Amino acid sequence: MKEYKDDSLMLHTDLYQINMLQTYWETGMDQRNAVFEIFFRKNPFENGYAIFAGLERVLDYFNNLKFTDQDLAYLKETGIYQDDFLAYLKELKLKLTVRSMVEGELCFASEPLMQIEGPLGHCQLVETAVLNIINYQTLIATKASRIRSVVGHGDKVSEFGTRRAQELDAAIWGTRAAYIGGFHSTSNVRAGKLFGIPISGTHAHSLVQAYRDEYKAFKAYAETHKDVVFLVDTYDTLRSGVPTAIQVAKEMGDKINFIGVRIDSGDMAYQSKRIREQLDEAGFTDARIVASNDLDEKTILNLRMQGAKINDWGIGTKIITAFDQPALGAVYKLVSIEDKNGVMMPTMKISSNAEKMTTPGVKQVWRITRNKDGKSEGDYIALDDEAPDKMDELFMFHPVHTYINKTVRDFDARPLLIDVMKEGQVTYELPEINQIRDYASKNYNALWDEYKRILNPEQYPVDLSQKLYDEKMASIKALREKIQVKVDRLEKNNVS
Amino acid sequence: MKEYKDDSLMLHTDLYQINMLQTYWETGMDQRNAVFEIFFRKNPFENGYAIFAGLERVLDYFNNLKFTDQDLAYLKETGIYQDDFLAYLKELKLKLTVRSMVEGELCFASEPLMQIEGPLGHCQLVETAVLNIINYQTLIATKASRIRSVVGHGDKVSEFGTRRAQELDAAIWGTRAAYIGGFHSTSNVRAGKLFGIPISGTHAHSLVQAYRDEYKAFKAYAETHKDVVFLVDTYDTLRSGVPTAIQVAKEMGDKINFIGVRIDSGDMAYQSKRIREQLDEAGFTDARIVASNDLDEKTILNLRMQGAKINDWGIGTKIITAFDQPALGAVYKLVSIEDKNGVMMPTMKISSNAEKMTTPGVKQVWRITRNKDGKSEGDYIALDDEAPDKMDELFMFHPVHTYINKTVRDFDARPLLIDVMKEGQVTYELPEINQIRDYASKNYNALWDEYKRILNPEQYPVDLSQKLYDEKMASIKALREKIQVKVDRLEKNNVS
Repeated sequence: MKEYKDDSLMLHTDLYQINMLQTYWETGMDQRNAVFEIFFRKNPFENGYAIFAGLERVLDYFNNLKFTDQDLAYLKETGIYQDDFLAYLKELKLKLTVRSMVEGELCFASEPLMQIEGPLGHCQLVETAVLNIINYQTLIATKASRIRSVVGHGDKVSEFGTRRAQELDAAIWGTRAAYIGGFHSTSNVRAGKLFGIPISGTHAHSLVQAYRDEYKAFKAYAETHKDVVFLVDTYDTLRSGVPTAIQVAKEMGDKINFIGVRIDSGDMAYQSKRIREQLDEAGFTDARIVASNDLDEKTILNLRMQGAKINDWGIGTKIITAFDQPALGAVYKLVSIEDKNGVMMPTMKISSNAEKMTTPGVKQVWRITRNKDGKSEGDYIALDDEAPDKMDELFMFHPVHTYINKTVRDFDARPLLIDVMKEGQVTYELPEINQIRDYASKNYNALWDEYKRILNPEQYPVDLSQKLYDEKMASIKALREKIQVKVDRLEKNNVS
Repeated sequence: MKEYKDDSLMLHTDLYQINMLQTYWETGMDQRNAVFEIFFRKNPFENGYAIFAGLERVLDYFNNLKFTDQDLAYLKETGIYQDDFLAYLKELKLKLTVRSMVEGELCFASEPLMQIEGPLGHCQLVETAVLNIINYQTLIATKASRIRSVVGHGDKVSEFGTRRAQELDAAIWGTRAAYIGGFHSTSNVRAGKLFGIPISGTHAHSLVQAYRDEYKAFKAYAETHKDVVFLVDTYDTLRSGVPTAIQVAKEMGDKINFIGVRIDSGDMAYQSKRIREQLDEAGFTDARIVASNDLDEKTILNLRMQGAKINDWGIGTKIITAFDQPALGAVYKLVSIEDKNGVMMPTMKISSNAEKMTTPGVKQVWRITRNKDGKSEGDYIALDDEAPDKMDELFMFHPVHTYINKTVRDFDARPLLIDVMKEGQVTYELPEINQIRDYASKNYNALWDEYKRILNPEQYPVDLSQKLYDEKMASIKALREKIQVKVDRLEKNNVS
């Protein structure tokens, strides 16, 4: 095997995508126009919502796609592909048109987050990487929002998880997503550099070990930094760590900005209360207590319930891996395909697992809010030729339990899928990360509290328009009849 | 904020590492020789062993470390660092000496996997990225080994998880680790290209949807490929998918290599048995049945117990994220530091969480096996000046429950930490990936079955030498006395 080491991402895809492209190309199907939609079937963490993230990375990926000479040499070596097909790949320029939610948008199960349109074969090639990116960043932004939602007003939440991240990319893109979801800073300096996220961090236990003495270590740190947080649990938090921190803070006086102390082990509720007393007694009533040690929204909620005196939270493993559910299952499904007469036809997949069935047709997601206070009424998925924003009243019903329904008046309908790429050219101006974060926060605030509860939230309505619902039902019926005809024919052949 | 977009990994570290370096540098401590060791405290998945992986990636990371102009410009902008310190960073050349287990080595909780020695400040800078890499690859190799251990003899296991991986790096390095752990192939073409891993994959449901007909789709695929697996569950697996696959396979005859069919939904036990009957009846007794759909070692074990007729397994989410435990908690702890007289002194950390206490001193891990059959006796951690390989008998005892002990004779003692880098120069020749995979397999075979059970395995002995044990106990005692003296002094000051 030869060595291929270039950094092309063109082959960052599943083998079957290229296999299918060979079939499409040879049978003259590769140029048929197709529309794929991305959606997930369940909100992650049984949360009431998710926060869409990953678009910037996806557009960057699209901008750099080309089969390199090494890619082609490797594909040739696999023996799967014919030379004329490889020659076709060499010249291939992807002409994708993409509509997408913007980063920071709240999103929900069963609604399209992104639509990829273009020649069938082109759409297929990018499926794997797009899901790889969207699944992870959306997952982490959502997890971050959950964690942020349980800390106190004015508390700061930092992402500390690089060492436990699933490889390097996850560390930086994960912390970007956490910031979008409401975190305040990261310990990863490279993420700070690349994305402009605030960075935070102080010192480790090794500093104390290196000086072989807590006092010397704290003193050395204080003499070489302006902003100072001391890690106080190397030996004995309450009897040695905190008193030493106080001593050094007093000695240094105005020469440092004594922010507070950090604990990374022991019982956080008990210790933080005692530390608060010690700091207050010494006159450091503004000094903050930072806690870290496998924290997530559940431990934070419990610690706060017990009156823990923690001001700032360092979150590592549990945010950067989304520990309790480390994957979002977003999928990429064909919803419309050009037929041989050039007409776009809706298409769907039926499955023995009902939840794997898809909704056919090219759609738009409309966010319905009340004009009077901007509060959410639900999402309304319609075919792309419908215009609920031009309607005076909207009949909204549950797509499975249709008896759950309501008629909405005096509402605003905002389309969530916007054009971001036109035939291979990015048409969307990327916002600054702080704009994205603010936008997520604004969206979060417009949601009723009932949807935001971290345990057993009320289900946010994601409804289908009457027309879409009717077309879906008609498609299922037509497809089942067609299958039955085919099954009958197969069985007849078998008998004869 | 300016934009910094270069691909330097130098800042892929926690902020506190650079903060500590500034302190070490200003107080003249940065050149003190230090030794850090990496270990994890619990085997992942409550497994009986782990498989070490990630070294190749770590050495590549070490080879490319340098503060770039953009790195320095960004650090300056943060306002945390002084100009003379930044000038020092600009010239910094890391001089690390590294001893490590090799990839594919079996490893266990509480033993050093890797040792980083060098100037204190240098060692600190690389901690975060090294853990980021080792934690993930070791985790995935171990998970892969568990899954591989429950499939049938001759079954193939493929990694299909890129779309659910935690960002791009995880997809490729994760599948490399899965291959080391015993998987047979990956669907990620880029991983195939970069690492020489066999690739596998056929077609998706969208192929069937695009042709709007299962027969046309299968036929088109078969006419454009040599090796053929049909995905049969788009509409109705048993009544349409499999009969159509059989029809096309018969029509194509010798023109294709009909490998078999794949199912991705429905009840895998029931369906695979019916599919087997259909294939056998049609004369395709060698055709294989490939299953995928959120599989892991537990579902595979249950399916096999029910007599499922599955030959090959496609594993996605559950392997690439190590779903049931998505992080390995390996840590990087200072074990020895040069004092002001140039003498290396063992050091440790005491914690209120007993499991967070470390074992001081520079160590070697010896794998003890019986000469008569090569079977494992346990691991023996000794100080680096001990030589158990020169001893006739070895007293091995549990490091906490010391009454569990044995004396071993006629044994082989093999040191697991070998030199891989000397003062910044790689001294280790990287093996081919298939050598690593074979080595992991050989090590796995030398382990008693009792340690390999995927549920409640027997605990493999990881013992300390008498000398190391005694020194650890003495260190704890000395440290506690020292802390007590300090506490007394602080309390006295407080009263006075």
